[in-house]
Amino acid sequence: MDTRTVGILGGGQLGRMLVEAANRLNVKTIILDEAVDSPAKQISNSKDHIIGSFNDPHAIEELASKCDVLTIEIEHVNIEALKNVQTKYPKLKIYPTIETISLIKDKFLQKGHLTKNSIAAVKSIPIPENTVDNLKQIGNELGYPFVLKSRTFAYDGRGNFVIKSQDDIVQGLVTLKDRPLYAEKWAPFIKELAVMVIRSIDGKIFSYPVVETVHQDNICHLCYAPARVPDSIQETAKLLAENAVQSFRDCGIFGVEMFLMEDGELFVNEIAPRPHNSGHYTIDSCVTSQFEAHLRSILSLPLPKNFTQFATSNTNAIMLNVLGGNTANSELEFCKKALETAGCSVYLYGKESRPKRKVGHINIISSSMKDCERKLDSILGVSSTITPQSDRKSPLVGIIMGSDSDLPVMSAGCKILEQFGVPFEVTIVSAHRTPHRMSKYAIEASQRGLKAIIAGAGGAAHLPGMVAAMTSLPVIGVPVKGSCLDGVDSLHSIVQMPRGVPVATVAINNSTNAALLAVRILGSYDNKYFKLMNDFLLKQENEVLLKAETLEMLGYEDYLTKAK
Amino acid sequence: MDTRTVGILGGGQLGRMLVEAANRLNVKTIILDEAVDSPAKQISNSKDHIIGSFNDPHAIEELASKCDVLTIEIEHVNIEALKNVQTKYPKLKIYPTIETISLIKDKFLQKGHLTKNSIAAVKSIPIPENTVDNLKQIGNELGYPFVLKSRTFAYDGRGNFVIKSQDDIVQGLVTLKDRPLYAEKWAPFIKELAVMVIRSIDGKIFSYPVVETVHQDNICHLCYAPARVPDSIQETAKLLAENAVQSFRDCGIFGVEMFLMEDGELFVNEIAPRPHNSGHYTIDSCVTSQFEAHLRSILSLPLPKNFTQFATSNTNAIMLNVLGGNTANSELEFCKKALETAGCSVYLYGKESRPKRKVGHINIISSSMKDCERKLDSILGVSSTITPQSDRKSPLVGIIMGSDSDLPVMSAGCKILEQFGVPFEVTIVSAHRTPHRMSKYAIEASQRGLKAIIAGAGGAAHLPGMVAAMTSLPVIGVPVKGSCLDGVDSLHSIVQMPRGVPVATVAINNSTNAALLAVRILGSYDNKYFKLMNDFLLKQENEVLLKAETLEMLGYEDYLTKAK
Repeated sequence: MDTRTVGILGGGQLGRMLVEAANRLNVKTIILDEAVDSPAKQISNSKDHIIGSFNDPHAIEELASKCDVLTIEIEHVNIEALKNVQTKYPKLKIYPTIETISLIKDKFLQKGHLTKNSIAAVKSIPIPENTVDNLKQIGNELGYPFVLKSRTFAYDGRGNFVIKSQDDIVQGLVTLKDRPLYAEKWAPFIKELAVMVIRSIDGKIFSYPVVETVHQDNICHLCYAPARVPDSIQETAKLLAENAVQSFRDCGIFGVEMFLMEDGELFVNEIAPRPHNSGHYTIDSCVTSQFEAHLRSILSLPLPKNFTQFATSNTNAIMLNVLGGNTANSELEFCKKALETAGCSVYLYGKESRPKRKVGHINIISSSMKDCERKLDSILGVSSTITPQSDRKSPLVGIIMGSDSDLPVMSAGCKILEQFGVPFEVTIVSAHRTPHRMSKYAIEASQRGLKAIIAGAGGAAHLPGMVAAMTSLPVIGVPVKGSCLDGVDSLHSIVQMPRGVPVATVAINNSTNAALLAVRILGSYDNKYFKLMNDFLLKQENEVLLKAETLEMLGYEDYLTKAK
Repeated sequence: MDTRTVGILGGGQLGRMLVEAANRLNVKTIILDEAVDSPAKQISNSKDHIIGSFNDPHAIEELASKCDVLTIEIEHVNIEALKNVQTKYPKLKIYPTIETISLIKDKFLQKGHLTKNSIAAVKSIPIPENTVDNLKQIGNELGYPFVLKSRTFAYDGRGNFVIKSQDDIVQGLVTLKDRPLYAEKWAPFIKELAVMVIRSIDGKIFSYPVVETVHQDNICHLCYAPARVPDSIQETAKLLAENAVQSFRDCGIFGVEMFLMEDGELFVNEIAPRPHNSGHYTIDSCVTSQFEAHLRSILSLPLPKNFTQFATSNTNAIMLNVLGGNTANSELEFCKKALETAGCSVYLYGKESRPKRKVGHINIISSSMKDCERKLDSILGVSSTITPQSDRKSPLVGIIMGSDSDLPVMSAGCKILEQFGVPFEVTIVSAHRTPHRMSKYAIEASQRGLKAIIAGAGGAAHLPGMVAAMTSLPVIGVPVKGSCLDGVDSLHSIVQMPRGVPVATVAINNSTNAALLAVRILGSYDNKYFKLMNDFLLKQENEVLLKAETLEMLGYEDYLTKAK
């Protein structure tokens, strides 16, 4: 796709997934890594890979001499060496830029850069010298607890120490001795969010969905995409991440980690100028993966419109990191469970299994987060009540009625849904006698995965309309015939909704048609049900044709006799 | 995922995609191929790859000595050599089995095997000796035209010669001289279908969707998944393919190519005991790709339930082969177009560009075949009326009405759909005055991509119910108020449908609610519309709250005055 060669400083799993994307596009890559057989090198037989540290000036120069574009999979690289090769090879492109790497590599400089650019970040204070007195003064200023952090070479929680009170100061200085330190105010966050953002060469910003990361022992354990937070918070997080990345005059992918506080406030925690663990879900769930998007942007190759979006409008994903088990390769047990589970993709990095080492990840994709969570539980063996292949069906249609006296009428609808194999639930919800239960039912319906609600009611029939007022799902109303007015009261109460809140009304007592309508609604997007409805209509037609044939054959008098 | 090593005879693109799948699972592969840097070897830095022909007994033995499982990417391998290594290494697993490869490698034996197992295949006749007299006799038996075919080493049309009349016999023998030949009856097919089938080690059969392949100059050009044929033909093709593969006592993936005749009859054309070009679409559109499924089945690794199905219930795909252009790399031009187009993935094989050589493929995925076709046109530059990024919107909702006198009522619904950004169409369809137009509209609606139909009608209002009778889509009925009976006539005509055919009826004259219901139906599966409906309900709520505040502030008398 391109004749230019891309050099990558670092050959771990991030490099490996960059190389996989490059292989598919026939883009040549050269890896600089100390290991002969690092994860990235394993999947490229180039003779040009270099054995050496991404901090070694000679190795970096050798890499630069062979490449047109340099990029990184880790920011802890030798800045001086990069400056030298840029001088020596002025045509060489380096993304992220040396300036960005310098700013980000030193976490205190990073925080300063963000603050200078009005990006909300946790308050940070420099520590000119690592002394107890200095830290006591900081404790007075920031309050306890605060976090002592290494400015450089900190990742997966290493390089951080929480100072809970003055008594911890000495231990903190011992643990992080000889490191350049700074102090950060304690951020009692309720969730960690993250956004992958692409900055194109001409300064355009494209952000991937907002995700939620869950850490265990300071290592990323899970990533939920999209984040399980309200839309308004997702929107704010997206803007914060976009503004943060916009502040770097650069090109390529950035990972922005954020803290969400109880009051909804958001702070940038830190930024990575490269592919990121919180973006692995993009491989299976977004239009273009973070790895391919990074490559295409640093090579100025085209990217489609909305390339950062989910592949379908109802994609949900959970990424589960595979960490080495306590005994070597014991983690493969749950990887095997993932292989058994539909919608799961397993990515192993070709690394030796060591306890807690990131050796792979699993992407779990489904049309609902609830289903992703169920699959995750099954993989992790969390719940024994779950069927091994996570094929327990959540209801797609809810049938509710104002009173059990409506059940004889509504049961015909249940039979139809059973006949079509539609998972459904049926219960009693009365607008007038259980108004709070009704609200709860309506409000939670969509989150529980329902796609349509069928509500039956008689007389002053308020249930269908009231439920419709509290959900965005389609609500189908069945007017149930009461003791007077022949059901016209129910019909008019249900169908004559004011502008703004529709109820899909069917004929009086005709819950059969309500269920068939629900199947048609499912069939709009799910071919399985569409085909079943086609078959149903054909069967109906054939039944009538058969009767016609019989009537023609027997004559009307015999037919009437036999029909009895 | 497995400590066993898989050896692959042949290192072209099929081998490459097998290696890609193996890399992700940490499964070690060793490639035997004449080229030092064949496509498959490029993406694996193993030091064990072998330079040699998949026909060279020594090379095959070297490969066997290093592997636990042998598989192939091409069936034209040395059978004797495989038999020898099987004797020498009795624990070595070879899939497909030597017996299968022997049967399939010789196309005439293959046909015989199929016929013996009652699998419908085109009639074939052996040619004991390549003489003009023999062929004349065959011409008398099969009729003209018939096809002269090489029993071995035939692919992409090479090795075939069509004998249109006696006059072609000499030329045919010259073209295919020295090859072992057989003759096949001419099959005037209307389409070519194909199915990828997995046979598990315990004899279970799993088939991928039925696809349609389109050839140009005897080379596969396009593959449509699913095939654009009626469901009943898909079902028959699937069974034929499954039976064909069941006849081999084997394990792994098979590609079954079939001819579809005008009368709906199906014949197996040929079978490949390995991944196949017609299965490349599975990488992006099925639960598990053909490559990963083959690996997992020959290694007895778990596969999820329904792993051969489309990833979502409305996945549609077109695979476009990338053939080398007339000038080297000129094919990259349309690959770039594909990079610009959402839902397209480009796979290049690391092969030198030569005219008509298969150097890559492009998978185009969308929720409708029509959209896939539009994207394909855009990539191939077929139609200039298409916007570059294929983002022209097909209507999702159709609004129809019995008469233009209904338009003032129905236009409110149009405005709502505009407001929600729903692509829609609006036209006049009268049940009583244009009954045939109505049938056509109803029957074609779903094929044109509509997800719901809104039908408005007054008086003896038959349009919504009649349309509902001829489509499986949800139909929303708007009773339009006529000059008498206050619209109750229309309401009852629309809502009181018989059991079996539902119409989602809304209030009299309330096309606003019809449109809002259509948005809710779209929102059941498309989050974008679901969120917009949430916003809409919130906005409605706020408007009323504002009015309440004003009323409370002004008092009811002032409010009434100001409201005027």
